[in-house]
Amino acid sequence: MSLIERLTDEFARLPGIGRKTALRLTYHVLKTSPPDAHRLADAIVAVTERVRPCEICGSYTEESPCEFCSNPRRDRSIICVVEEGSDIAAIEGTGEFHGLYHVLGGRLSPLDGVGPAELNIRALVERVSPGSSVREVVLETNPSVEGEATALYLHRLLSPLGVRVTRIARGLPVGGDLEYADGVTIAEALQHRREM
Amino acid sequence: MSLIERLTDEFARLPGIGRKTALRLTYHVLKTSPPDAHRLADAIVAVTERVRPCEICGSYTEESPCEFCSNPRRDRSIICVVEEGSDIAAIEGTGEFHGLYHVLGGRLSPLDGVGPAELNIRALVERVSPGSSVREVVLETNPSVEGEATALYLHRLLSPLGVRVTRIARGLPVGGDLEYADGVTIAEALQHRREM
Repeated sequence: MSLIERLTDEFARLPGIGRKTALRLTYHVLKTSPPDAHRLADAIVAVTERVRPCEICGSYTEESPCEFCSNPRRDRSIICVVEEGSDIAAIEGTGEFHGLYHVLGGRLSPLDGVGPAELNIRALVERVSPGSSVREVVLETNPSVEGEATALYLHRLLSPLGVRVTRIARGLPVGGDLEYADGVTIAEALQHRREM
Repeated sequence: MSLIERLTDEFARLPGIGRKTALRLTYHVLKTSPPDAHRLADAIVAVTERVRPCEICGSYTEESPCEFCSNPRRDRSIICVVEEGSDIAAIEGTGEFHGLYHVLGGRLSPLDGVGPAELNIRALVERVSPGSSVREVVLETNPSVEGEATALYLHRLLSPLGVRVTRIARGLPVGGDLEYADGVTIAEALQHRREM
């Protein structure tokens, strides 16, 4: 197999990259300067070798505990539970949340063989156990079938521990169009309507 | 800058990869096994260090002359001119062409500062000069405005050298739908209609 085919195969393994896109990426690498290509390769190796899950929250970090868990200015009374570490960037981008995070590393999905034991749930239970500073857990798993099931499971698991368990609101997205929204979303948005 | 941000930046430099896709790719790399990630990094470095343009036709190859130029079974009387090396794979995939190739490395685009001197044209003229085995040059630049301009330029340049200069046919693509075809394509397809 030629080196061009080999790199194309490797690119095609990435999520959302088909054969044609992979080939285009390979030719882009061929046309870039060697230092640029090496920077990409080095960044891949560096991330693989030096980024690890945080021992407390499970988010990917270069130093464990991570920047959130080790930051004394974060609010230690509230934990936001997300499916993946990449969700944290989206939430931090809003600047609206100042608590701690907990990364599950996925969602409950029995068909894919993902049960509670496969997720980072035991550590979450320990973090909210009686005696801890945590007063509220916000479940920010995705509003998908599996995400909802995961939230429901965690609600049942955590509520008996005396912690407040909340779920992010669902409704019409800002800038969305009623005409194109699905029925379930509109029904939920109506049900949870608020005073103006 | 964190290693995660660094890799995301590098991915986002690739063509057609936006910030969100780049972040998803970064987290995919984080979740893959280290050997898999190293394979991708190694393939990038190997392609950069060991793949070079063929000294004859300009296509990317590990050994120069390339597999086409050095293959005695290829038809040396016909040269297919393409914009990029990646176009060769598409043509080879058809199994219909058995001649040689010539890669321009782009198309004439005065607005982007790409003139004849920026393309691999001088070597093409040398290849079809009197005394060579070349009888026909098929211009397979893209059917875009710049691709057509490039074909026209090459036609004027090469015809006086006593070589037959042809252009790939344009018309309705197989599986296409007349209703959705643009007027120029339909007009050309009509103009170049053939006996059945």
